[in-house]
Amino acid sequence: MLDERQTTTPHARRTRRNRGHDAQSRAPGQNTHLRVPYITRKVPTYDILGDEALDRIEATADRILAEIGIEIRDDAEAVRLFRQAGAQVTPVSATAFNLKFEPGMVRDLLRTAPARFTQHARNPVNSVEIGGDATVFAPAYGSPFVMDLDTGRRYGTIRDFENLVKLGQSSPWLHHSGGTICEPTDVPVNKRHLDMVYAHMRYSDRAFLGSITAPERAADSIEMCRILFGSDFVDDHCVIMGNFNTTSPLVLDGVTTAGIRTYAEAGQGSIHLPFLLGGAVSPLTMAGAVAQCLAESMVSAALSQLVRPGAPAILAGFLSSMSLRTGSPTFGTPEPALGSLVMGQLARRLNLPLRCAGNFSTSKRPDGQAMQQSMMSMMSAIQGGANYILHTAGFLDGLLSMSYEKFVMDCDMAGALHSYLAGIEVTEDTLGFDALAQNGPGEHMFGTDHTLRHYETAYWDSGLNDDLPFETWEERGALDSAQRANARWKETLNNYQPPPIDIATDEALRDFIARQKASMPDAWY
Amino acid sequence: MLDERQTTTPHARRTRRNRGHDAQSRAPGQNTHLRVPYITRKVPTYDILGDEALDRIEATADRILAEIGIEIRDDAEAVRLFRQAGAQVTPVSATAFNLKFEPGMVRDLLRTAPARFTQHARNPVNSVEIGGDATVFAPAYGSPFVMDLDTGRRYGTIRDFENLVKLGQSSPWLHHSGGTICEPTDVPVNKRHLDMVYAHMRYSDRAFLGSITAPERAADSIEMCRILFGSDFVDDHCVIMGNFNTTSPLVLDGVTTAGIRTYAEAGQGSIHLPFLLGGAVSPLTMAGAVAQCLAESMVSAALSQLVRPGAPAILAGFLSSMSLRTGSPTFGTPEPALGSLVMGQLARRLNLPLRCAGNFSTSKRPDGQAMQQSMMSMMSAIQGGANYILHTAGFLDGLLSMSYEKFVMDCDMAGALHSYLAGIEVTEDTLGFDALAQNGPGEHMFGTDHTLRHYETAYWDSGLNDDLPFETWEERGALDSAQRANARWKETLNNYQPPPIDIATDEALRDFIARQKASMPDAWY
Repeated sequence: MLDERQTTTPHARRTRRNRGHDAQSRAPGQNTHLRVPYITRKVPTYDILGDEALDRIEATADRILAEIGIEIRDDAEAVRLFRQAGAQVTPVSATAFNLKFEPGMVRDLLRTAPARFTQHARNPVNSVEIGGDATVFAPAYGSPFVMDLDTGRRYGTIRDFENLVKLGQSSPWLHHSGGTICEPTDVPVNKRHLDMVYAHMRYSDRAFLGSITAPERAADSIEMCRILFGSDFVDDHCVIMGNFNTTSPLVLDGVTTAGIRTYAEAGQGSIHLPFLLGGAVSPLTMAGAVAQCLAESMVSAALSQLVRPGAPAILAGFLSSMSLRTGSPTFGTPEPALGSLVMGQLARRLNLPLRCAGNFSTSKRPDGQAMQQSMMSMMSAIQGGANYILHTAGFLDGLLSMSYEKFVMDCDMAGALHSYLAGIEVTEDTLGFDALAQNGPGEHMFGTDHTLRHYETAYWDSGLNDDLPFETWEERGALDSAQRANARWKETLNNYQPPPIDIATDEALRDFIARQKASMPDAWY
Repeated sequence: MLDERQTTTPHARRTRRNRGHDAQSRAPGQNTHLRVPYITRKVPTYDILGDEALDRIEATADRILAEIGIEIRDDAEAVRLFRQAGAQVTPVSATAFNLKFEPGMVRDLLRTAPARFTQHARNPVNSVEIGGDATVFAPAYGSPFVMDLDTGRRYGTIRDFENLVKLGQSSPWLHHSGGTICEPTDVPVNKRHLDMVYAHMRYSDRAFLGSITAPERAADSIEMCRILFGSDFVDDHCVIMGNFNTTSPLVLDGVTTAGIRTYAEAGQGSIHLPFLLGGAVSPLTMAGAVAQCLAESMVSAALSQLVRPGAPAILAGFLSSMSLRTGSPTFGTPEPALGSLVMGQLARRLNLPLRCAGNFSTSKRPDGQAMQQSMMSMMSAIQGGANYILHTAGFLDGLLSMSYEKFVMDCDMAGALHSYLAGIEVTEDTLGFDALAQNGPGEHMFGTDHTLRHYETAYWDSGLNDDLPFETWEERGALDSAQRANARWKETLNNYQPPPIDIATDEALRDFIARQKASMPDAWY
């Protein structure tokens, strides 16, 4: 456990404070006063559109659902639930149905979804709040490749998966262990979810996401939670969530809807994500992309409420653009950043939690492009009020690669965002009149009472960025930030200690996994 | 001239539009529809504090000026002007005076300063508006060193200065040529300003900043403008500005105040900048730093109004933090970013233009750290509504170095910010209902009328970032963004063509410079 939170007893806190001026010798990037299980924002959201424009976007979403409709494929039960709720159902083929909804109907179905809920972690101090003024950071999700500066790009393995869970657990600036932190391509497709869920349970003690690639894998994920948390607890509490993609434009496939039903039936959380590549699966213009995003996400989320009213559901949007010269997807660009801010406004009008944006980039290296694009995208997530921010760490190569170095760089940036979201406190003390008055014009303030009182907590203290004089930096090897991150992740993995787990529980989990794996032949697709 | 603006006649614009689908073969980073002489923002400012908190900051600024006061050194005329205006003057030494101001008095003196003004460029299409909803980007200012990937860090020369002016002029995403783009350390200190001002006049046709290091150098800068623009024009129009630093905390030295008087007397612009390193020359806590910033900047700006009511004056703030472990200054960190947003709110309450933030970084390389810090800082500048953003390109090494590569990377980022500040347009067309309706659920939108109508303008098209598939990127040399920027600045300098200038004017400028240089011996300090 590199995470110091477990040791912040009142006694430990007093001791740390008493060290006072020893702070100069402390390890970098501590900022212990900023450490929290999740962020409670102190800065307002950045609202860029007025009510009239938001009304028009919502009206367009309603019109899409009323006039074009959503197609549901290969899930008669989902169609039945929506028909029962009042949707107008038209067959498209033997297994596909078009569903149209009166304006306002889907919004009404969502009224039972909680505005805010707790996802419980096995270590209760790490449970996170999702919704309202809470912000939760989780690592990137879904890359088939991993990369590091030593070996370049390669397919991800379960060893990488475990390493990355450990790196996440070791950072105080993430709050959630995420889900498919990379694809463990050396494990059969039909058994992967067992090893992934186990890695989150064993190498992290934070909340995490379960499998969504097949309904039975979703069920396995939840079953493992019953072993870890106890069945009774799982019945009444959200302990796992699934991240569900719509099939844009305007389609929900049966694997997705069955997965949503599985999580909702168990009272677990579901994230409802349209992944909208503008010009390909959504209008190029951001107003239209956002309207479609709202329409798709609302219908997907509404299914969870038809299955179990009150089940936690998260509205979501992954907005992206494309290169107009090559047709390649682009990430971390300005238009989707603006779209994410608007998604925040729309989610608040619906009174639902939002997942949006993250540390997006198309760069193939943890370089200037990577961090410039990431920061633009990530700022939109936190300024727009997104509550659950997947893809906070490691995202490179247009989501095709999880980078060890960028993971570490993004975690440090996530730390800086803790300070950003703490905002500016305006009090007699922070206005610091006495600091200026103490020595008067022309005198430095290094030794004033105000400086001594605040210098340990006034500023974000990066654990990775280099602020040294040029000559010192050069003497220490003239390393760029990616090279420093390379050393850092190795050091972190070397120092990693798994959080304690009850031995009987661990055995029960391993036993369940062994039985499930033995019950079916390997499948590789 | 790489800048296409001079060719955007109605005919040229029609021609470009007619090329239609040829866009795929166009050079990257064109986005000609975003090119403007300055940005008119379409997104609202990001206001993070409420009126009560802003009132308290203003009251603290007033209290600083009323109870602690500002010290003016070595400028009897400035003291006389303030005394005449009602300041309470107390001698501190033979040449230094403490000035105290009744609450509200300095604010009253500022009522004559324009909320918005034009700085004229020698090419009229490049004149910029400063204030209100206008945003102007200018390169970094004041580094003694330059660096590039080939030769590392070295002292800047007049050749570097000229190169950097040319790079700025070549980018469509800067609007202003800046000032001391790097220190030309191979030219005597007392003659440097002549070569610097000439470089801006000759190698750029945009607006620029003049010298402020001595009143006679300020006068020379303005005299050169009289040659370039004509004396009558200069008398009635702002064609040059000086960037003046207060000597924080709470001091104005005589060189600064005499410079401000020189610019104001000539009806030219002045920028009033406290450079506040928290804990050293201002309170560590951002509320206090902002209050001090406001107090210092207001008094400095008020001097311009005492000299010539109505002279253009720009409120300013350079807020920074420091490393709590080493005492090194830090830039591009979250607290100053928040402070910059608040400075925006305060400037709007004063109804004055603002210079704030920029592409700040402490990194010694154009790496991930550099661009992450830059983006955090730069977002605060544009979201906070800063009107004149110095340090938009090239800033590295805590302002000690101007980087050729980062200059190019920052210019590209500045282009992306043009798209960001264009905001989201919500119209029947951009809502794109027809795009979705045309093919219906599950169908790609590549060929829809809406996509064909918008695909050339929907998204920012970076001229530097790499969005290619990994394999293509690898085949093309696997370059990171700094390496691509290295090739780009060389290519840009190779292709550079100076903007046309009247031969007689050019000769008159050279003649003036030769006479001034001959009139005094070289001085190196």
